Amino acid sequence: MDRNELLEQVKFDPDGLVAALAQDHETGEILMLAWMNRDTLQRTLEKNVMTYWSRSRQEIWVKGQSSGHIQEVMEIRIDCDGDALLFKVKQHGGAACHTGHKSCFHRRYEHARLVTDSERVFDPDEVYG
Amino acid sequence: MDRNELLEQVKFDPDGLVAALAQDHETGEILMLAWMNRDTLQRTLEKNVMTYWSRSRQEIWVKGQSSGHIQEVMEIRIDCDGDALLFKVKQHGGAACHTGHKSCFHRRYEHARLVTDSERVFDPDEVYG
Repeated sequence: MDRNELLEQVKFDPDGLVAALAQDHETGEILMLAWMNRDTLQRTLEKNVMTYWSRSRQEIWVKGQSSGHIQEVMEIRIDCDGDALLFKVKQHGGAACHTGHKSCFHRRYEHARLVTDSERVFDPDEVYG
Repeated sequence: MDRNELLEQVKFDPDGLVAALAQDHETGEILMLAWMNRDTLQRTLEKNVMTYWSRSRQEIWVKGQSSGHIQEVMEIRIDCDGDALLFKVKQHGGAACHTGHKSCFHRRYEHARLVTDSERVFDPDEVYG
């Protein structure tokens, strides 16, 4: 394989993972934070579709593979110490979160309480129920 | 201490850490990704200033304490599975990164190469040299 500076610069943690951040490429909204290993990072680069490593299921996770709500990669950035990647993506289907919210960060902290954003792209009971 | 739903909902990893993401509260630009433990998260909530746990130095890290380039917390969000926190911050001094760039994610991936953003807020050689 030819040299790839991104793969050379990424510092995977002791579990072989790197933090992968998905951000809406138009609005700048943070959609989710998940993890990639070297294999799923390479798949992401090749297919241009966000492909994570599921720590809970210990398997390759092509985000939106079954629902069609894939995340198309528009831009990739790496941080100064190489242990985090930022992907600017086009979120197909409008929502990154299984709850139907656009972002997984849909709970806001306010006066020691968590307040959930009211807006949702879909009703998970209808989609998954 | 009174109930605090955020502290109750955070799922710290086996090392007692949670990913903490700092985003410019006005522009939406991602500034950096670092880590907090329970203690530094509580300090962040109390002081309203981003306080990380430095994994490399194994110590409390009040971002900008010596330089004055602190990160003032404007909004806090938690993701759906509780293992990542998003902080919308006001970056004092204009730059989050020790390189003088506003964001630690100042290297963009392009055709197997990494391209560094030209714009910098300060010259680190002048500040730290």
